[in-house]
Order: sequence, then C-alpha cells, then structure tokens
Amino acid sequence: MKFEMMPIIWKDEKLFLLDQRKLPLIEEYLEINNLSEARNAIIDMVVRGAPCIGFTAIFGLALYLKRCSDFLLSTFRSECDFLISARPTAVNLRFEVERVFQLVKKLNEENKSVKDIFDSVLRFGEVQLKLSHEKHLVMAKIASDQMSSIYGDRSLNLMTHCNTGYLACGSLGTALGVISFLKHQNRINHVFVDETRPYLQGSRLTAYELMKENISHEIVVEGAASYIMSNNKIDAIFVGADRIALNGDTANKIGTSTLAIVAKYYKVPFYVVAPISSFDLATKSGKEIEIEMRNEKEITEISGTKISHPDCKALNPSFDVTDNELITGIICENGFIDPRIPGEVDKVVRGK
Amino acid sequence: MKFEMMPIIWKDEKLFLLDQRKLPLIEEYLEINNLSEARNAIIDMVVRGAPCIGFTAIFGLALYLKRCSDFLLSTFRSECDFLISARPTAVNLRFEVERVFQLVKKLNEENKSVKDIFDSVLRFGEVQLKLSHEKHLVMAKIASDQMSSIYGDRSLNLMTHCNTGYLACGSLGTALGVISFLKHQNRINHVFVDETRPYLQGSRLTAYELMKENISHEIVVEGAASYIMSNNKIDAIFVGADRIALNGDTANKIGTSTLAIVAKYYKVPFYVVAPISSFDLATKSGKEIEIEMRNEKEITEISGTKISHPDCKALNPSFDVTDNELITGIICENGFIDPRIPGEVDKVVRGK
Repeated sequence: MKFEMMPIIWKDEKLFLLDQRKLPLIEEYLEINNLSEARNAIIDMVVRGAPCIGFTAIFGLALYLKRCSDFLLSTFRSECDFLISARPTAVNLRFEVERVFQLVKKLNEENKSVKDIFDSVLRFGEVQLKLSHEKHLVMAKIASDQMSSIYGDRSLNLMTHCNTGYLACGSLGTALGVISFLKHQNRINHVFVDETRPYLQGSRLTAYELMKENISHEIVVEGAASYIMSNNKIDAIFVGADRIALNGDTANKIGTSTLAIVAKYYKVPFYVVAPISSFDLATKSGKEIEIEMRNEKEITEISGTKISHPDCKALNPSFDVTDNELITGIICENGFIDPRIPGEVDKVVRGK
Repeated sequence: MKFEMMPIIWKDEKLFLLDQRKLPLIEEYLEINNLSEARNAIIDMVVRGAPCIGFTAIFGLALYLKRCSDFLLSTFRSECDFLISARPTAVNLRFEVERVFQLVKKLNEENKSVKDIFDSVLRFGEVQLKLSHEKHLVMAKIASDQMSSIYGDRSLNLMTHCNTGYLACGSLGTALGVISFLKHQNRINHVFVDETRPYLQGSRLTAYELMKENISHEIVVEGAASYIMSNNKIDAIFVGADRIALNGDTANKIGTSTLAIVAKYYKVPFYVVAPISSFDLATKSGKEIEIEMRNEKEITEISGTKISHPDCKALNPSFDVTDNELITGIICENGFIDPRIPGEVDKVVRGK
C-alpha cells in the first residue's frame, strides 16, 4: 500500500513535512533544512499525532548532525532538551529524542565520525518508520481475520472516529490502517466517519484520507450514531486509543465511549486498535485515568468565529474512558485481546 | 416567569420580531409593519420554531386587516395562500393560517366591519400565545412533580438537546420550559446542553436562553454525553419532540436517540416533553416515520468556511427516532405517559 500524501518524507538529504494546518483544502509540503525548523514545525502543528511528532524529532536531530562541523555531546544534549521543550507533555517526543541521544552518545564514545553518527541516526529514523508500518500491518491483518471469521469475505460497512491514519502515524495507521488494509483486499463497501467535535479530525483528516484512497465514505455528525446504526447495518467500528488500562478500559478522543455505548445497544462489534506502547499496565482501571480539560474556545468558536454568546460557558474534556465491557476486542501487534476476560490484557501485552 | 427577550411582541399596533439570525451575538428586534414584511421574516428565518412561525402568521394577517380599506374575502384568501407558500412544508404555518381564515370568513358572513375582524384576529393571536404558555406550564408542573417524586426537593443536574425554549415556542417552551420552571422553583444546580450539530441550536440558542435566565450551564460536544453522565451524576434529561407515534417512538432532532441510549446505559431518566399537537396516532411506530435528509453543506461548511475536502461526502439526516423503550416518560398537557406500557399513549392523548 502506497499513500499519495505521506506526512513525512526524507529526500535529497532534506526533510519534507506535509503541512497539516492547511489540510484538507491545500496540500503543501514544507521543506525543513535544520533542527530549528523541525522544532518550529512541531510547535506550529505542521505535524500532528504522537508518532509523527516523534519521527519529525528523529529526522530533525539527523539534520542537526548533518550540518554539524564541531560535534560536542554536551551541545547535542542541550539541543535535545530544547527540542523536547517544544511540547513538554508529549511523551512520545521525549521518548524518541532520548532514544536518539543514547544512540549518539554510544557512537560518540566509540569515536565514530559525525558523518557516521548522522548516517546511523538517519537509518534509525528510517527503521522506526518501517517498524511502525510493520506493526500496523500486523494489527490490520489480525483485524481482517476477525472480520473474516464473522462475515466471511463479503464487503463491509464500517464506522470510525477521530483520525488514526497515516497523517497521524506517518505509516499505515491503527484503526484507519485496518480500513486501508481491508480496502486493499477490496472488502470495503462504505465507511461512516463522524466529525469528531470539537477539533473535527474526522471531517478534516479522516474523510480526506478516505477520499485519497477512493474509499466510499460519508461524514456524519456524532449525534447521528444511533440513526446510522439503526438504519445502515454497520458491521464493525474501529477506533484507536491514547491509553489502555490493565483491565482493558480505554482512554481515547472524546466521543469514543458514547459511540461504544450506541454500538452495544445495536449489537455492533466495537474494536480498539493500538500498539503495545499505548498500554499502561500500571493503571489498573479507567477510573485512575485523569481526563485533560482543554480550552472552552474549541467549542464556543469555530475558525475564530464566536458561535455562542460570550457569557455562555462550555466544558471541553479532550478524552473519555470506554468501559472494557463495551469493547469487543483490543487488537495490538501481539494479538487479539478480549478485554472482558480478566487477565487477558496483561497476558497478551506481556506476550505470556 | 417573565423573559427578557420574547421573540414575538405586539406593541403600539405593530409586530416586533427578535431577529434570531443575529443571535446569540446581537439582540435586535425587527419592526414588522405589514403582511409582506411578516412573510419575508418567515422566509428569511428572522423567526424560527414551528409555534413562533404560526404566531407570526396570525399577527401578520392581523396587520393586513389593520391596513385594509376595501375588504374582499377572495383577496384575503389569496393573501393567505401567498403566506402559506413562504414555507410550504411547515404544517403549523398552514394550520394557523387556516384557523384565521375560518374565523375571518365567519365574521365576514356576519357582516362585521374590517375593524371588528381585525380586533378579533388580534385577540385570537393573543389568546393562542396565552394558551400555549398555559399548556407549557401544565407540562412543566407535571415534570416538576415527577422530579419531586424521585429526588424530593433537592437541586437537580439536568441535560437537554437542541432548542425547545421561548425562542422556538414564543412562550415558556417544552423541555426548556421545564428547566425554566424548575429554576423558578430554585431547584436547578447545573444544566449541560449539547451543541446540537450540525445547526448548533444548543450552543447558539439554548445556552443563550440559559444564560439570560441565570441558569448555571455548560455547553458540551455531543460526543461528551458518556463522559458527562459517567462523571456528573445527571438526574434527568429533558428533550422535545417533532412527532410521536402511537407506540411512543419519538422523532426529534438528530442526536436525541444517541443521547437516550447513553442515558439508558447510565440509568439516567429520559423524558420527552411535547404538546398533544405533536402526537400522530395514525403512525403506529417510529419505523413508519420518514427522516428528512438536509443539505450536506450543513456538515461540510461552518459559516461559509469549508471544513472538509470538496471531494468528501456527508450524510445529514435531520431527525432520528428514539425507541419507546428508551423513554422514561412522555409529558403532554393531558398528563404523564409511560410509553413502555402498550396503549398508554392513546389513552392519555385522547383523554380516555
């Protein structure tokens, strides 16, 4: 599967980032020539999605090494810290920067040349992108087998929420990766994607990705979930995850739990697709997960236009927690998990 | 209960309409001096909500009679038809115009003067507004008693959907009328209102009405329904209805059924508040109710700004049907109906 519009491209010793601020109306790549430009691209939301931010950081550090004449580990450490400060709460950004730092530190101790260190970091970035794609492909195959076991090889009507495709992941994608994979197998009849208020990732990005892949689709408002499921025999719903607790309770973009409850009412199978890195086995259940509140302006304004009276208040939780009993299956690269069976999450994630 | 901003005011022999196109940011009344201006106000959406459109038609016809020197019933009939053509599918508009026509025809046959006919039509309009308020008050009292029987006199946390207050009804309102009434009794702690995509009646109008009445409130996205109900002990949800079938299945603004399913999951009582005129006993169940599809631009554009790629499609059902089993009670001016009891709707609506 090749995507027309990869969000991160390394070409001619330069980094090119698809400017996601301008999507879906304008498709434009931004040329990134040095670490500072990469850092600004992260701050300015040119790239988004935890995996993509991580990859941008790796290639940004490669650009630093490429232009470095006098390499000093302490200076490189400062550059790493400065890069992390672009998004201090983004766990994935810090994670990837630290991995690059450890690699660079080791090679430096081995007295490798800056050119060699640059080559290694570049290769590391390319390998991570490839690994991510492979992981997503494994998950997509598990999901596809699940669909076959229920529906045989007939064409499917699916639903999804938020954006979990290549624009967020830089590779196949999680829930949307499953849909791309099924499309590749010619097994998609139609996909409904909800808008995903307040940030509209569904209308802006997921619908755009579906359109790019020629997948028959319609955007619906989130309130239409019951209408769609009662009137259009939906075969399955696939969503991603931000954090999965030990008991299978899943934190994901606000609206996920509402969709899962409607799915249960209409007996539509509901799947969470997420890599092992999304599991947090130290968190026993969803009750322990704190939900971040975002600025109420995301609800009271659209594109800078006020839609409610200035004296009206809004509450903007950015995530919700879906109870494990609402989830038919969690799909990770280690396999299929039925979260309603106690101990299953732990067993599969640890590969026991 | 007095509202600061009544949508329809008759004063100094003129009609004043609150310009709802400019709400919630600008509060401005439009002076209506003749029938043609009243008709344009209906077409241009200065007034909205079936009851308000009906009242505007009555007062518009009064304005015609006020300025009429040579009254001719056939000319008046033409004016009536022209007024109806402003919104040919609005059942309520036609209903009120025909009632006025029958009244005028009768008085004309009794050789009443145009001045007397004008006086009668004006009084008819004022009586209808008053009757509507009284009906809504009866419903609000039934709802209030219901709350007392469950929760005693403690303060309540409520949710509502779409706009069902005085801006739509010209009087107290149905579901929002219940909330106003409870506020008047000092029994509201907090109200959550969802945005009601795609038209945003919740953010634009209901939140505005709550703010005007100093009711503590927050706007939430519709996807937050599960988050709100799992985290904020909601005591009850009140919504309106567009059409109620014989078995209690209820057609209402898209999103109502989704909200009702989430309410059932969290065991939150879910009430429909609607006058007898909303019941359609010839329709046996919700399955017979056809759902109108509206322009997809309501989803793909906001205030004229495209939010999805032009090649992306959207599906925009304007209503959904809530199964009777999801509804704790339907409240009409004849009393409280448990729609899960067969025959209850028919019995109460017909006043048996």
